[in-house]
Amino acid sequence: MAGNSFGTLFRLSTFGESHGSAIGGIIEGCPPGIELDMDFIATEMARRKPGQSAITTARNESDTVEFLSGIFKSKTLGTPIGFIIRNKDVKPDDYSEIEHTFRPGHADFTYEKKYGLRDYRGGGRSSARETACRVVAGAIAKLILKAYDIHINAFVTQVGPIKLEVPFEKLDLNSAEASIIRCPHAETAQQMIDYIEIIKAEGDTVGGIIQAVIKNVPAGLGEPVFDKLQAQLGKAMLSINAVKGFEIGSGFDSVNYKGSALNDVFEMRDGKMVTTTNHSGGIQGGISNGMPIVFKVAFKPVSTIMKTQKSVTKTGKETSLTAKGRHDPCVLPRAVPIVESMAALVLVDFLLLQKTIETSTS
Amino acid sequence: MAGNSFGTLFRLSTFGESHGSAIGGIIEGCPPGIELDMDFIATEMARRKPGQSAITTARNESDTVEFLSGIFKSKTLGTPIGFIIRNKDVKPDDYSEIEHTFRPGHADFTYEKKYGLRDYRGGGRSSARETACRVVAGAIAKLILKAYDIHINAFVTQVGPIKLEVPFEKLDLNSAEASIIRCPHAETAQQMIDYIEIIKAEGDTVGGIIQAVIKNVPAGLGEPVFDKLQAQLGKAMLSINAVKGFEIGSGFDSVNYKGSALNDVFEMRDGKMVTTTNHSGGIQGGISNGMPIVFKVAFKPVSTIMKTQKSVTKTGKETSLTAKGRHDPCVLPRAVPIVESMAALVLVDFLLLQKTIETSTS
Amino acid sequence: MAGNSFGTLFRLSTFGESHGSAIGGIIEGCPPGIELDMDFIATEMARRKPGQSAITTARNESDTVEFLSGIFKSKTLGTPIGFIIRNKDVKPDDYSEIEHTFRPGHADFTYEKKYGLRDYRGGGRSSARETACRVVAGAIAKLILKAYDIHINAFVTQVGPIKLEVPFEKLDLNSAEASIIRCPHAETAQQMIDYIEIIKAEGDTVGGIIQAVIKNVPAGLGEPVFDKLQAQLGKAMLSINAVKGFEIGSGFDSVNYKGSALNDVFEMRDGKMVTTTNHSGGIQGGISNGMPIVFKVAFKPVSTIMKTQKSVTKTGKETSLTAKGRHDPCVLPRAVPIVESMAALVLVDFLLLQKTIETSTS
Amino acid sequence: MAGNSFGTLFRLSTFGESHGSAIGGIIEGCPPGIELDMDFIATEMARRKPGQSAITTARNESDTVEFLSGIFKSKTLGTPIGFIIRNKDVKPDDYSEIEHTFRPGHADFTYEKKYGLRDYRGGGRSSARETACRVVAGAIAKLILKAYDIHINAFVTQVGPIKLEVPFEKLDLNSAEASIIRCPHAETAQQMIDYIEIIKAEGDTVGGIIQAVIKNVPAGLGEPVFDKLQAQLGKAMLSINAVKGFEIGSGFDSVNYKGSALNDVFEMRDGKMVTTTNHSGGIQGGISNGMPIVFKVAFKPVSTIMKTQKSVTKTGKETSLTAKGRHDPCVLPRAVPIVESMAALVLVDFLLLQKTIETSTS
Repeated sequence: MAGNSFGTLFRLSTFGESHGSAIGGIIEGCPPGIELDMDFIATEMARRKPGQSAITTARNESDTVEFLSGIFKSKTLGTPIGFIIRNKDVKPDDYSEIEHTFRPGHADFTYEKKYGLRDYRGGGRSSARETACRVVAGAIAKLILKAYDIHINAFVTQVGPIKLEVPFEKLDLNSAEASIIRCPHAETAQQMIDYIEIIKAEGDTVGGIIQAVIKNVPAGLGEPVFDKLQAQLGKAMLSINAVKGFEIGSGFDSVNYKGSALNDVFEMRDGKMVTTTNHSGGIQGGISNGMPIVFKVAFKPVSTIMKTQKSVTKTGKETSLTAKGRHDPCVLPRAVPIVESMAALVLVDFLLLQKTIETSTS
Repeated sequence: MAGNSFGTLFRLSTFGESHGSAIGGIIEGCPPGIELDMDFIATEMARRKPGQSAITTARNESDTVEFLSGIFKSKTLGTPIGFIIRNKDVKPDDYSEIEHTFRPGHADFTYEKKYGLRDYRGGGRSSARETACRVVAGAIAKLILKAYDIHINAFVTQVGPIKLEVPFEKLDLNSAEASIIRCPHAETAQQMIDYIEIIKAEGDTVGGIIQAVIKNVPAGLGEPVFDKLQAQLGKAMLSINAVKGFEIGSGFDSVNYKGSALNDVFEMRDGKMVTTTNHSGGIQGGISNGMPIVFKVAFKPVSTIMKTQKSVTKTGKETSLTAKGRHDPCVLPRAVPIVESMAALVLVDFLLLQKTIETSTS
Repeated sequence: MAGNSFGTLFRLSTFGESHGSAIGGIIEGCPPGIELDMDFIATEMARRKPGQSAITTARNESDTVEFLSGIFKSKTLGTPIGFIIRNKDVKPDDYSEIEHTFRPGHADFTYEKKYGLRDYRGGGRSSARETACRVVAGAIAKLILKAYDIHINAFVTQVGPIKLEVPFEKLDLNSAEASIIRCPHAETAQQMIDYIEIIKAEGDTVGGIIQAVIKNVPAGLGEPVFDKLQAQLGKAMLSINAVKGFEIGSGFDSVNYKGSALNDVFEMRDGKMVTTTNHSGGIQGGISNGMPIVFKVAFKPVSTIMKTQKSVTKTGKETSLTAKGRHDPCVLPRAVPIVESMAALVLVDFLLLQKTIETSTS
Repeated sequence: MAGNSFGTLFRLSTFGESHGSAIGGIIEGCPPGIELDMDFIATEMARRKPGQSAITTARNESDTVEFLSGIFKSKTLGTPIGFIIRNKDVKPDDYSEIEHTFRPGHADFTYEKKYGLRDYRGGGRSSARETACRVVAGAIAKLILKAYDIHINAFVTQVGPIKLEVPFEKLDLNSAEASIIRCPHAETAQQMIDYIEIIKAEGDTVGGIIQAVIKNVPAGLGEPVFDKLQAQLGKAMLSINAVKGFEIGSGFDSVNYKGSALNDVFEMRDGKMVTTTNHSGGIQGGISNGMPIVFKVAFKPVSTIMKTQKSVTKTGKETSLTAKGRHDPCVLPRAVPIVESMAALVLVDFLLLQKTIETSTS
């Protein structure tokens, strides 16, 4: 638990500072013989890329992934997949101000306390730039899940006060990609975009909520006690920058039900055991039950704002700071592929773990 | 990630089915030379014990911990601490009904799907009985934290519709123990108890919210990227039976703020760098900043209710089930020490990890 | 790597001091549905038991295993198997001498340096008594291997100067059990026993070599680079008390060959690809090739001798020590089932890991 | 245990095929604030480099390490150190022969069996080229050990029949670097070189033995039971290509001693507790005792020889193979820095683990 690896059998380890020469990672445990669709990987990277629309940061990174190993004749070898992404749009900015002063809401202060020194340029290791590596691994995980017909859809359900009020079952979730905010309801999407434009004009930032729905997960994934499926999904999501909350199924709203109303009773439907309702979000006792897995993730507003804020220097002098540079007014649209990627990593890992149980008994 | 261990350096591994002969565990990585206060451990066990009050289950377990190793002349040896807790109040009940029928909201169905067989007596491994082992390890972790003057207080802030409206800063958190529901505001506590009595009389169950406040955590705990402090705390909490949501600091409510309002700006107070507000809940970039760590955990109502519910049998026949036996109408009061225990495990593990960083540079 | 666990998917964690109330362990990752043959487990325990013959220690332990979880109706559940073995023949000896003085060749000094305190009674955690737990897990691992028709035979090939000169291919390896020294060649076995009797009469001790042969291991087990099959087998053996050396295949003798003589060339035999010779000991590039896996393990003489030896006290005074009590003149016969058990743990773990590769490609 | 990572707190993960675009790795857990001496790292790389002398392969690789992260202003940040080494001297050879035929002694057959496909160019992942990454991490580990005044010296003690007969205590171990075979006794070194020249002229290969001596290791390193210091060192060495045996201290020779002769008795020397002899090789009960750590590693002859050998094709046809290209007649001189590097990784990991014990008690 040194902090830079995720997963047990399907395992991503990453490295890289925001303004160093490159970020990158190693994907271990990827099964051999998988055809890697490089166009799909590039498409996923483009969904997270800065500068993709008017409501994201103007930082310009091509985010081209260079794969260095583990692939031969376009198929995975079963050996580790090493990859790097060069940091290109690194400006020779004057970082002297944040070298000596801690930005509010950022990890400047805590990294300094933890390590005794830090790469202060653009947040260094604490920058959300590292999430690009998660999307690389997530894209490969999705290719594995595709063979099981498992599909993950994340989408924005709230931006500041603007909420998607239509339940996801009534929406075409794939339509989320049609809007730059990635909300699958066109009218709400437009309201969200308008709201972000206003916030951006104010030099301020805003947070929101992303929901994820995963279909066709077989019953049996997840491990008992400490590695319950919702526990690992929760950890995965809470490891994403700016995430402040996670809930599975009916989540915090569960408090408003009695047990008799919340329990998902079983019934037979088309010859299959299913639950009539899905308050549990597809998980019981930490293990998937075959129903859609449904969860929500809360993101706080981005800490970097274009307004002057109070702060202190490393030597304890009170001062004030005003951000320079290019930042996202709202991180939600770019966070959608990151949420999906982390969910994909969790699922592939549990799928591989389950192989060791199922095949042993047969 | 086989599901039965938690932690890296300070590591708890557990075993045991609800109605087997015993549950137990191994605590690895406990530093040597720690005086084990057996009275304190017994007190912690009593806080989780069934049958402790009128609003908990009547199952009668003395929950006496037998320590088998790792302790010599009342001090820890640094070697693994093995312990067992015998299951005493195991009734020769007729379990034939749940042998063949899946209880709604329980793990019967998912364990059957995962393993192909299960110990159906009282839920087996999926029963919350295993949390007794977490409290054993948590009590020892608290003894370690005490040496750092770190204190954890969890308490109930909501039961069904009854909410604690007073912010925790204005309450004596230690007073929570004075009420059987473990809410530190006497009047609200009584309302919660009254509500649970009504629900119990209906044969129904109810959920709620537990908040935790941890004081004096030094800045620097937590690891970057994947093992952020909130990610590991979130996993710890989401691994507890019946937990459906976790939020750190302002959590889901963060969505209602702009960045300029949510950012915790730094100031000097009594010669120390602190943040003026604590929306972040004591964590920035995944690492503690020295402010109180504050989080909330949502519990759904207990699945076992005294009402008839629809279900299906293992062979796919629709049927109905009515629970027998002794169950909690509301799990919240007994969950308070479990939340504290899991938080203690997380913190001790990160404290030990931080030793490897701090002492290396000196 | 806190030292008390072994394995990744099939994982044994142990606890216990030699003269505490019990030793025990947890076996995680055991596949569900396996019929546990309790007689077989007891037989394996009896092979390691003290007091089994005239050439082993007279310490009298029944070594009865109490299984506490993970088993239901005599089948494994897939959940962790917890077990304990009570320490019965614990004499209220006067340990004051070794409390203050370090026994030569023992871990008294190093444990004191590592932890700052120790349970000095009979070596505490450093005693070979903990290997009883390895045999419990090893017996279960053997039951899993049996389903794959994989068989492990370890046997004694050298005791002091007495060597087994006949190559194992010409012997009935199962006949090793017929002699109390566990050498599969009756005449050599008797010479070994005679030699140990002499050494015992001198109050001295002697070491030796154990060879292991594993048949029917499928090609493909082991992982590249750091977790090569021979690396993990080597670690497993070198973790056993008194082991000083490990070699795979032709081992140290490889130095005496040129590449052209040592290379195992491939040929077709009965329609199967095999190697003509087996200098590699069944492993190439760290991965099994389907030939028998063959390795040797060197054991030093037991440190506890019935002769007076020089030593120093905790406070640095030179002194002398004479062992009291009951000890093995030669640990080899009792080490045979331990070697087999550790090999079984390694193989089951790699078998389960390989499931995640093979089934993914189909 | 997916095979591509080594270590718990100080952890190296590597990737890369021999003839892919690059190899590389991530070093996690390197303490912050360490000044990285790039000249030292380059010197270490040069010791392992192909083409360094007349008795090594002529493959020409500059083996320039490009560090991508974890370093700022020439100091370590505490964050992961990512690095790559481009594969430059990759010839567009005709590999069609080994695409279809398994080379004797190589991993071609076992990788094919394990993964169902392989990168056959130069051995792919199974090539010893990956050990370059170990030397990068080992060099950084050595820089950490230097601060503790811990020094590792490995050197060649045997090549084929040529043995170094002088005990290491009587030699200047640093003088090993003066000869291209890395033997610290000039006369023996020359005999070894002459012997290798003969073997090379024959188109054959030869193995040998490397000894390592580590001075100033503090007492207390290593973990009980499964992660004993000799077990982890043994695993580290047995994970190196071509290694067939490992022994600690008196190793296999222990068999020739009685306990009374082999036991290392304690005495006071210059006010310090030491052992009079060091048969144990500096480790008791798996934990360092402050005496020099001494071990030996056996290497088989390189499998690639310039002679025709029998083999079989993937489709099971018997055939013959003659190696082309550039290969080492004896891998020993280049293996010396690899042995030292692996030992350094083990020691730093245990040093960091010990921090969590020692500082906790104070």
